[in-house]
Amino acid sequence: MAQKPSIPKGTRDFSPTEMAKRNYIFNTISNIFELYGFAPLETPATENLSTLMGKYGEEGDKLLFKILNSGDFLKGVDTTDKDYKKLTADICEKGLRYDLTVPFARYVVMNQNNISFPFKRYQIQPVWRADRPQRGRYREFYQCDIDVIGTQSLFCEVELVQIASAIFQKLGMDVVIKINNRKILTGIAEIIGSAEHIVDITVAIDKLDKIGLDAVNAELLEKGISQDAIQKLQPIINLKGSNQEKIDTLTTMFATSEIGKKGLEELQTVLDNVQALNLPTEVEFDVTLARGLNYYTGAIFEVKAKDVVMGSISGGGRYDDLTGIFGLKGMSGVGISFGADRIYDVLTELNLFPANINTLTQVLFINFGDAERNYCMPVLNQLRAKGIRAEMYLEPVKIKKQMTYADSKQIAWVVLAGEEEMKQQRFVLKNMQTGEQQTLSAEELVNSIH
Amino acid sequence: MAQKPSIPKGTRDFSPTEMAKRNYIFNTISNIFELYGFAPLETPATENLSTLMGKYGEEGDKLLFKILNSGDFLKGVDTTDKDYKKLTADICEKGLRYDLTVPFARYVVMNQNNISFPFKRYQIQPVWRADRPQRGRYREFYQCDIDVIGTQSLFCEVELVQIASAIFQKLGMDVVIKINNRKILTGIAEIIGSAEHIVDITVAIDKLDKIGLDAVNAELLEKGISQDAIQKLQPIINLKGSNQEKIDTLTTMFATSEIGKKGLEELQTVLDNVQALNLPTEVEFDVTLARGLNYYTGAIFEVKAKDVVMGSISGGGRYDDLTGIFGLKGMSGVGISFGADRIYDVLTELNLFPANINTLTQVLFINFGDAERNYCMPVLNQLRAKGIRAEMYLEPVKIKKQMTYADSKQIAWVVLAGEEEMKQQRFVLKNMQTGEQQTLSAEELVNSIH
Repeated sequence: MAQKPSIPKGTRDFSPTEMAKRNYIFNTISNIFELYGFAPLETPATENLSTLMGKYGEEGDKLLFKILNSGDFLKGVDTTDKDYKKLTADICEKGLRYDLTVPFARYVVMNQNNISFPFKRYQIQPVWRADRPQRGRYREFYQCDIDVIGTQSLFCEVELVQIASAIFQKLGMDVVIKINNRKILTGIAEIIGSAEHIVDITVAIDKLDKIGLDAVNAELLEKGISQDAIQKLQPIINLKGSNQEKIDTLTTMFATSEIGKKGLEELQTVLDNVQALNLPTEVEFDVTLARGLNYYTGAIFEVKAKDVVMGSISGGGRYDDLTGIFGLKGMSGVGISFGADRIYDVLTELNLFPANINTLTQVLFINFGDAERNYCMPVLNQLRAKGIRAEMYLEPVKIKKQMTYADSKQIAWVVLAGEEEMKQQRFVLKNMQTGEQQTLSAEELVNSIH
Repeated sequence: MAQKPSIPKGTRDFSPTEMAKRNYIFNTISNIFELYGFAPLETPATENLSTLMGKYGEEGDKLLFKILNSGDFLKGVDTTDKDYKKLTADICEKGLRYDLTVPFARYVVMNQNNISFPFKRYQIQPVWRADRPQRGRYREFYQCDIDVIGTQSLFCEVELVQIASAIFQKLGMDVVIKINNRKILTGIAEIIGSAEHIVDITVAIDKLDKIGLDAVNAELLEKGISQDAIQKLQPIINLKGSNQEKIDTLTTMFATSEIGKKGLEELQTVLDNVQALNLPTEVEFDVTLARGLNYYTGAIFEVKAKDVVMGSISGGGRYDDLTGIFGLKGMSGVGISFGADRIYDVLTELNLFPANINTLTQVLFINFGDAERNYCMPVLNQLRAKGIRAEMYLEPVKIKKQMTYADSKQIAWVVLAGEEEMKQQRFVLKNMQTGEQQTLSAEELVNSIH
């Protein structure tokens, strides 16, 4: 008895209909990346574990998929020690990439002599994480990243905001682009007298959306931040008003924090330049935006969809030393990543996929047998030459079966040309939506399908 | 000291220039697949090892990349036995896909109730093999497959030949499409009195191109095929003439072989229908074509480039029971796979990549500072709205550095607008190839770049 096949937990097959929608997202995103001068890059799925380990924290190391060495991987390996972590290092040299940023940094360092900096690249590829699968979280999923490396120019940040706006406008999604700056977060920690707790503070206030203010305050207290400091933090977390009003309020508060002032200055420059572009998208300075990550050193971005309950659909920021881990110092990078799966879910929920993105067959020729098929072939090929997706049913079976096939593939047009039509050098063209039928010459048929 | 990064043996990064060329190949191929009614499918990179093992022979099992189970993979595993094969089964549940055919068969079986048969799908994705890397052989490489499953109609074979012809014509490559039929090979084994040696015979004559006739005969002898049988085989291996002459000669020879006659009949049907299509591509019946594989049961295909020394760039065939391994019997499938890497090499060697496939920046705006940048931004954005890939250099550094950047990225146009041009509401447009400069208004600038 043959096995019943299945796929690994947390992975997915993408059917033709899903592929059409996913490709619509990927094409929209990559077209806009290219319009802004970003160039495509692809790196291999596997990287040396020495490249990947230690880059995503201890938790990340655990979530890396490791690949068993080929051949007799036990040769010279001591297996009496039952420590699986030690054994892993002995029997696995490679792993699947966990994100697109570390492979990008690795690429830049390896190719530094051939790259013209600033280097603007985009990368759309799957990544793998041994996370516990759950709704919306997969073990294999695509990331769509753009990064600029090799310049500290804040014009990069402006461009990234512009690109995010262009992409979501093109997709018909109403979004808010949130922006903050890590230096502002550091400034806040300084002025409330808890500079040493900057990480705990950012991690806690990053959860504000999810767990609410009381829980954030409780977490801060638990992490050893004083009641006094937490008290001072409240008006900042609750900061209201326009972007400019928020900046002005903080400017007063940051009188004693050089780094805080620097953060506000950077933010002001980015926001002023963004404003000059007159984007159709709301851009909001959110002082609680932290993205729970410690490696950002400047701008922090996040995009949220407006008409739907969903986590962030895009996020990123600036990190001043992207390639230092591989020995190339002083390379500042800034980037943003678009989450294809969440964008897919939003577009589905709001019914925003255009009707014409399907790449399936547009015209089906009914197969009445060899003679009729040969009669149809030249016209079928003329349609293809015009760019129309057209096929002949592969077997001369009952017409009902062929029509069912056309229905199930949602084919718009069916051509019927039997003995009678052949004799008269005509074709019957049926509109599958209206049921309407026309009898046409070859030329008329080719001209009436677009 | 930071590590010097590298990538795993047999894998590659694809730079922006290489990506443009690869995407040109993938887009050409997928567009034609779609014109013929094939629908895209993607399956995950990882499959359960139970899906993959035993499908590619003993050698194939060794070449599968296996993924270590997550967490404490040693829990409950006996590591005192130093047999690495046994241990592999205990500590690895998943592997990377080895080809696109087995995942396709697995998909069809899992989704058989939702698929309209005949199912025409294409799939363009990477596969992984732990082969010894060498020139032209990689451990990660893309396959571009089309298959039809669920019909024995020989019209599929005709369509596959038509598609191969269309693809290589579009790519500007002169090729010969070779065709044979496994039943003809079986017939040959029968009439030379060595039916039981069919596998050895196909494996040996498959090497004719590479090792020559004498070596093939030596191999046949070594495999235990009689001198008499080898003698009888010679006129068949040396079969000359047109496709029809070859078929006619074999028809006489196959008087006593039912299966041989059946094979010739199938081939005749396919060739007659192909001829009626008047393809611009040579289609040759090659009785020595075997593709070294035992699972083909009907047609066998191979495509070779004409003007260059290179192995086959495409190949495939029919197998009567594609999904039987997963419990779904009686599903005949026929397919063909296009080798992107070899096609890339042929196009490079013959200089056949079109000049306009580059997706990099077309226009660079020189950055003279904040005021000039703001002056340029509306025009820059108008160009993008027209679909022109355009960027502003990210920093107001020395013009020479910015021009070097334009050169290294092979940017066709550079726009210079400094203080003077701003005052006069003009832009200087420089053609980087001719060095020619024009002074233009915003509108003239936008209109002069296509």
